[in-house]
Amino acid sequence: MKRSERLVAMTNHLLDHPRELVSLPFFSSTYEAAKSSISEDLGIINQMFQKQGVGYLQTVSGAAGGVKYIPQFSKGYSEKFVNQLCERLEDPARLLPGGYLFMSDLLGEPETVRNIGRIFASAFAERNVDVVMTVATKGIPLAYAVAQYLNVPVVIARRDPKVTEGSTVSINYVSGSTKKIQTMVLTKRSLTEGSRVLIIDDFMKAGGTINGMKNLLAEFNAEAAGIGVLAEAEDEEEDRVVDEFLSLVQIMNADDRSGSIRVTPGNLLEKLK
Amino acid sequence: MKRSERLVAMTNHLLDHPRELVSLPFFSSTYEAAKSSISEDLGIINQMFQKQGVGYLQTVSGAAGGVKYIPQFSKGYSEKFVNQLCERLEDPARLLPGGYLFMSDLLGEPETVRNIGRIFASAFAERNVDVVMTVATKGIPLAYAVAQYLNVPVVIARRDPKVTEGSTVSINYVSGSTKKIQTMVLTKRSLTEGSRVLIIDDFMKAGGTINGMKNLLAEFNAEAAGIGVLAEAEDEEEDRVVDEFLSLVQIMNADDRSGSIRVTPGNLLEKLK
Repeated sequence: MKRSERLVAMTNHLLDHPRELVSLPFFSSTYEAAKSSISEDLGIINQMFQKQGVGYLQTVSGAAGGVKYIPQFSKGYSEKFVNQLCERLEDPARLLPGGYLFMSDLLGEPETVRNIGRIFASAFAERNVDVVMTVATKGIPLAYAVAQYLNVPVVIARRDPKVTEGSTVSINYVSGSTKKIQTMVLTKRSLTEGSRVLIIDDFMKAGGTINGMKNLLAEFNAEAAGIGVLAEAEDEEEDRVVDEFLSLVQIMNADDRSGSIRVTPGNLLEKLK
Repeated sequence: MKRSERLVAMTNHLLDHPRELVSLPFFSSTYEAAKSSISEDLGIINQMFQKQGVGYLQTVSGAAGGVKYIPQFSKGYSEKFVNQLCERLEDPARLLPGGYLFMSDLLGEPETVRNIGRIFASAFAERNVDVVMTVATKGIPLAYAVAQYLNVPVVIARRDPKVTEGSTVSINYVSGSTKKIQTMVLTKRSLTEGSRVLIIDDFMKAGGTINGMKNLLAEFNAEAAGIGVLAEAEDEEEDRVVDEFLSLVQIMNADDRSGSIRVTPGNLLEKLK
């Protein structure tokens, strides 16, 4: 196979298998080329991935070595994306009763969801995440987008057990904003003990739901490796029950009566290198 | 930029923008190369995409022309994937009371979900789909995976309205298996009139839920462009209310008491070219 053809094939393979170790002999035999040529190819790919801001190739040395494509959205791209998101969200027509914000249209766009996934996957790249968790419904596409780039599975907690889930573990938690007692369940066979779990959700106000997920993790002897929320809203009573999290955007002064709203970048951007 | 570098960059760009028209001048100016070189590059990429079974480049001629990457999972890959899926599902440990099958682990694997998305996107490629629709919860990751490859948005119907959705349209439908009356809602601003909607779900028995979605579409003056379900289960009473659909696998003789189960490829494989 010619170098030009090989580069297309290898780029496609690597992009489709993020964080998966691919051995040099695999490339060598699949594309019928000497290891030295493959090494050169990987050098070109690595350089271009970095130039395009989509990540880099990590070399794993030794007998069982090879390369891994690590998706990493560059700071420049992330800033541009987050600023656009703020602009789109800062539209009074999105205001719903109670100061909530309509975001379902954005969450329905596969490209937007993918970009959010890339940014979170970049931010939590070094947390040794074993699994991504969310609670039904709106966080689900985000959780999958993040999990895809981290190459780990997704587990979904629900507010009601379902017949197609098998046995579940259930906990009660207090919603931070409304102080109501709520229930959350997770299928028993979905998490192994000691898992490091990245919690992803679309929206956080006081943080009661996120805290519920943390309590659920405790039941499985699993631990939170990180918490990421798309939109963080001000909580008037300042009784936030979750302290360490990364948010993509921050919703401020949302008031459906006066039609005022301000959306600014969240704390994630500051943490990016 | 050298051809080798350009090929990596262009492959990445095309894979990341399925079904999006990219103009030759865009490539030409972004990668600083003559149109003739870009055309040659696209020829190589097209050839390799087809060889790898991931799709092809469609040329759109004229002043506003360019190329589109059309994802198309080859029949060979689809067959291999579906057969593996059948094997994994045909495990008596998956049987739940009532003849249901535990599938959440498979639906939690981003790569599996992506492959299912690719296969459905290939099967419904020529249906002029404007939007993919599903009902919460399990169909959501599948709907996004399909939508990503078709480059269209996703709308999610729910069984309960939520405060973050705004005004909704609600319908009642009869569950095919249990004959219970159920409710389904969809946010008012989520579908435009006349949309061609691809319905995707994880599981179908008698088809009551799918039928509910079709009724919901009627309320929006939208039409079903196709119906795809991951797993189709035998319905004992043979009163299926949905007739035209594509299924990836078919669950037969599921009986949790005797521990027997058989899973075979569904009707989708037959329809692939």
